[in-house]
Amino acid sequence: MRKVAVVGAGMTRFGKYLDRGLKELAREAVEGALESAGVDKSTPQVAVVGNAAAGLVTGQEMVRAQVVLREMGIGGIPMVNTENACASSSTAFHLAWLYVASGMYDIALALGVEKLYHEDKKRSFAAIGAAVDVEIMQKIIAAAQADRKQAGEKKEGGAGESRSLFMDLYAALARDHMRRYGTTKEQYARIAVKNHFNGSLNPHAQYRERYTLEEILQSPPVAEPLTRLMCSPIGDGAAALILCSEEKARQLTTKPLWVRASVLTTGQDHAPGEPGVGDRAAAAAYEMAGLGPEDVSLAEVHDATAPAELVLYEEMGFCPRGEGGRLIDSGHTELGGKLPVNTSGGLISKGHPIGATGAAQIYEVFLQLRGEAGERQVKDAKVGLTENGGGMIRGENAVTSMHILSI
Amino acid sequence: MRKVAVVGAGMTRFGKYLDRGLKELAREAVEGALESAGVDKSTPQVAVVGNAAAGLVTGQEMVRAQVVLREMGIGGIPMVNTENACASSSTAFHLAWLYVASGMYDIALALGVEKLYHEDKKRSFAAIGAAVDVEIMQKIIAAAQADRKQAGEKKEGGAGESRSLFMDLYAALARDHMRRYGTTKEQYARIAVKNHFNGSLNPHAQYRERYTLEEILQSPPVAEPLTRLMCSPIGDGAAALILCSEEKARQLTTKPLWVRASVLTTGQDHAPGEPGVGDRAAAAAYEMAGLGPEDVSLAEVHDATAPAELVLYEEMGFCPRGEGGRLIDSGHTELGGKLPVNTSGGLISKGHPIGATGAAQIYEVFLQLRGEAGERQVKDAKVGLTENGGGMIRGENAVTSMHILSI
Repeated sequence: MRKVAVVGAGMTRFGKYLDRGLKELAREAVEGALESAGVDKSTPQVAVVGNAAAGLVTGQEMVRAQVVLREMGIGGIPMVNTENACASSSTAFHLAWLYVASGMYDIALALGVEKLYHEDKKRSFAAIGAAVDVEIMQKIIAAAQADRKQAGEKKEGGAGESRSLFMDLYAALARDHMRRYGTTKEQYARIAVKNHFNGSLNPHAQYRERYTLEEILQSPPVAEPLTRLMCSPIGDGAAALILCSEEKARQLTTKPLWVRASVLTTGQDHAPGEPGVGDRAAAAAYEMAGLGPEDVSLAEVHDATAPAELVLYEEMGFCPRGEGGRLIDSGHTELGGKLPVNTSGGLISKGHPIGATGAAQIYEVFLQLRGEAGERQVKDAKVGLTENGGGMIRGENAVTSMHILSI
Repeated sequence: MRKVAVVGAGMTRFGKYLDRGLKELAREAVEGALESAGVDKSTPQVAVVGNAAAGLVTGQEMVRAQVVLREMGIGGIPMVNTENACASSSTAFHLAWLYVASGMYDIALALGVEKLYHEDKKRSFAAIGAAVDVEIMQKIIAAAQADRKQAGEKKEGGAGESRSLFMDLYAALARDHMRRYGTTKEQYARIAVKNHFNGSLNPHAQYRERYTLEEILQSPPVAEPLTRLMCSPIGDGAAALILCSEEKARQLTTKPLWVRASVLTTGQDHAPGEPGVGDRAAAAAYEMAGLGPEDVSLAEVHDATAPAELVLYEEMGFCPRGEGGRLIDSGHTELGGKLPVNTSGGLISKGHPIGATGAAQIYEVFLQLRGEAGERQVKDAKVGLTENGGGMIRGENAVTSMHILSI
């Protein structure tokens, strides 16, 4: 396998764009990436596009890449549409990497694009609910509705239910960690404080407000211990990367970044205490990169909720099992700490247009390793890690995709 | 890039399975492929799954591979969900090939699975309608409805409209060929006679009736010159392949088949008379294989309608431009002819569960090259070609994927 470089990156600000469709969002990110790489739209020899929800939100399925890219005059090249829930565009980046690493093509475009906002909010929630086994989910919802009916409650079930059940799963993971290791709700809240602060420094973040620990704790409850400000919002947006061979990279830039590891994996049935999908992915990524957690300058991890980030500290090997709470308390993962995590604001503050999230994580690492991250720049950043999880089956991520990039 | 072999293949019969879901269909195809390769479910190191319509038909999006494969005990490996309209599973096969050819993995599973039948027929039609630019399609439908309203007609528009517009596009291509080259409706019908005959010999075909030329011509009109028996039906089904490295293939079988070409490409804007996506794909596939059309023993091509097969004779180089009509009249592409096409019955008779079609084409070539095709066996078959088209944007396939396999 050949060395692969990232030589360009672009993204939209994440947000609520009722007036912009997939095509407009994709165009801004792709044009930004091409410009940053110093190439034009006829240069990429292959394109891989990640999108998770367009089928259910906009009705556009099947040929999403072709629809958004031909609109901007990109055609005649292989295009792959990929979908892996919240890890759709890290999967796209992984496949683009594979095309170049294999020697099949010299330059590739990876794009993540998503529109979750819809005038009919039920559509957005229904789409998110498809990131699990929908047959099983429908049975759970039906059972919950039957329980309520028996209890004489009238609260509406249906589409919105999927999202709350998803948050229920995260809340259960959070409570489990509290029970096992003495982790506190304040420690989860501290992660949210950090990520909202980082997001306030990021012009591409959907939300840019700073909050105190008290404000995080007192924001509306979602499912104990989660409050709204500990959870990622719904959003729209796009992010794109240009990958190429070493030879091509030397022609294009004096600042290539190297893909040291590209890992994709899926959960499996395992006994309690055995490594889960996150642990396995991290072990594989470090082995592929020939690096360890001690070498990482900064990381973007999948903080769909604040507790998820805390658990990921442990899975990524940033601290021993059970010590995630102590790690956040120590300031280690803040800007200025030894290993800043989610300098972009993470999913919580930068936003989480699901199919665009993985590519946007790599966009942040790109800026940081090039020294172009402005107010939130990590000093002497040499190695950046991304971890992007997707879907949930039997209590863990259905998909985990990790990348390690270095200068 | 390494040599890649196909060592196992399995498929369900295509058909209408209101009582079987994606999981059951996938299981039958995957277990068949594993058994045919002589390996068990823990052997594949990566899985790529093509599905086009589950999001809109069943609501299952985002993690379709994980949902259907973990159900049968396959997990802990990379899983990619890919969608490229009717070419979804040839795209999956292409990516599985890339994983092995690159040296990243030694053995891969490619699966295509689709359920189009739903109790609510509108859902099936709406899903098929997503294989185009839905924004443009919605404008066309709105304009057609406005015209009808003005003309005082009451015929219902909406979901069913998408499919009829899709067939309208094929009909327009057919009429154009008639006008330019003197092709006749009877020649199109002859292709349907051939494919229904071939399908009658295939136990996996959805429809197994034989028809006379008269019966094809007199079946209900769809859009001039298309009649219903010239068009592929809706269906459910799955097909799976096991791909591996040369070294692994030598351990597993004495009859490996070699992937000589794996090509994926997309349409682009071009002047009339310039090569379209089919011509470009064929040129690329022959170059990659180091073979020409004269070397092909049999071909499975994307006969979504009979005229599409006739046009593909020319694009694949089986005859000069404009001579597709003469080719079918000569018997060249019938069983017993020099280059039998769609020996499986093709999409018209074997059926067209869209995300499963590409993998099923390769399944047919697998049987033929192994000499296991029973009554429809092509004598001395050495080289098989598949062409799988998907979606339609600006009058041509949005996606074309081609493969050439040889003994």
